[in-house]
Amino acid sequence: MAKNVNFRSIGPTTYLSPVPVVMLGCADPAKGIRPNLITVAWAGVVCSKPPMISVSIRKERYSHGIISETGEFTLNLTGEALCRATDFCGVKSGREVDKFAAMALTPIPAAGLTVAPAVAEAPAYLSCKVKRIIELGSHDLFLAEVVDVNIAEEYFTETGAINEEAMQLVGYVHGKYRALSDVLGFFGYSIASDEALERRGLKR
Amino acid sequence: MAKNVNFRSIGPTTYLSPVPVVMLGCADPAKGIRPNLITVAWAGVVCSKPPMISVSIRKERYSHGIISETGEFTLNLTGEALCRATDFCGVKSGREVDKFAAMALTPIPAAGLTVAPAVAEAPAYLSCKVKRIIELGSHDLFLAEVVDVNIAEEYFTETGAINEEAMQLVGYVHGKYRALSDVLGFFGYSIASDEALERRGLKR
Repeated sequence: MAKNVNFRSIGPTTYLSPVPVVMLGCADPAKGIRPNLITVAWAGVVCSKPPMISVSIRKERYSHGIISETGEFTLNLTGEALCRATDFCGVKSGREVDKFAAMALTPIPAAGLTVAPAVAEAPAYLSCKVKRIIELGSHDLFLAEVVDVNIAEEYFTETGAINEEAMQLVGYVHGKYRALSDVLGFFGYSIASDEALERRGLKR
Repeated sequence: MAKNVNFRSIGPTTYLSPVPVVMLGCADPAKGIRPNLITVAWAGVVCSKPPMISVSIRKERYSHGIISETGEFTLNLTGEALCRATDFCGVKSGREVDKFAAMALTPIPAAGLTVAPAVAEAPAYLSCKVKRIIELGSHDLFLAEVVDVNIAEEYFTETGAINEEAMQLVGYVHGKYRALSDVLGFFGYSIASDEALERRGLKR
């Protein structure tokens, strides 16, 4: 493999990629706050047991206050059909726009949660409960436990497997939304037997 | 857009995707610990100012102790050419194997760090200093500041722009390594002018 002997610094920046790009759903009906969406790319898995994710949100964002107050939100995965709506929810504020209405999306009750809505048009969503908020600087880090995950029926095969390719998931790479394509391998494929590789349609 | 009226629960799990899949480089020469790599997919951006990332690592992993002790590591982005090595570094332990040697990778000094090596074959790497470690359960969360980012010279165009498509970055989706392909849009494209879209080669 070619060695990249020469590197050029671009300075300290958040150059990790790809990162997920998901629509976070929240609401606070007790305060008259309608279902709202905010797009987050500063998100990640942080623990397997218990299953936990993190999202980072600027203090000044409308959703920051809602989630801090209610302690719950959904993360709705983005397929290609939702890419434009996802971008819109990242550049507009819920203070001025009803993003569900503007993007013709449908808020539905989320399994395991009380007030935060899921997006009916999403291929899958995670129901999350906030456990801890940590101030970091421009963003506050919300550490949350995943209490349930729901996947649209159409992505299950007859045998009950999940057809993830059909979700046409989107990744975020330095300001660009990129489609995911070919499967290059599966976890452990570098040490798998020829038989295991062939069964999964891969070559050594 | 089609509404997914019916969802099926798969229970609480870490179903966020795509997530990054990167090789974390560390070493502790003062203790005779050679350069080591561990693959992390539980990683994300957590703050823009200061630029911070998080990685989650199980306590029992070899690298956990090294990073806790030295307080620094690199995150090396994965292009398609590095996918097999990335998988290998995720399933083998540095206690038993010299992963750099096994995968014919080259440790090089990382800009801004003292002991943690970068991978010469990676398209880009982030130099990170640990600020805080938070126990969550199966994994500990390392919050780290990015002190520098370096990109291999070959990915810069003549005008100094970065050709990210040429990096052939890899995402991780529920146990599978997936290639990134088409650009579907850029941040803000949902509200961009026709002129701006055309300039970027996109249609409304």
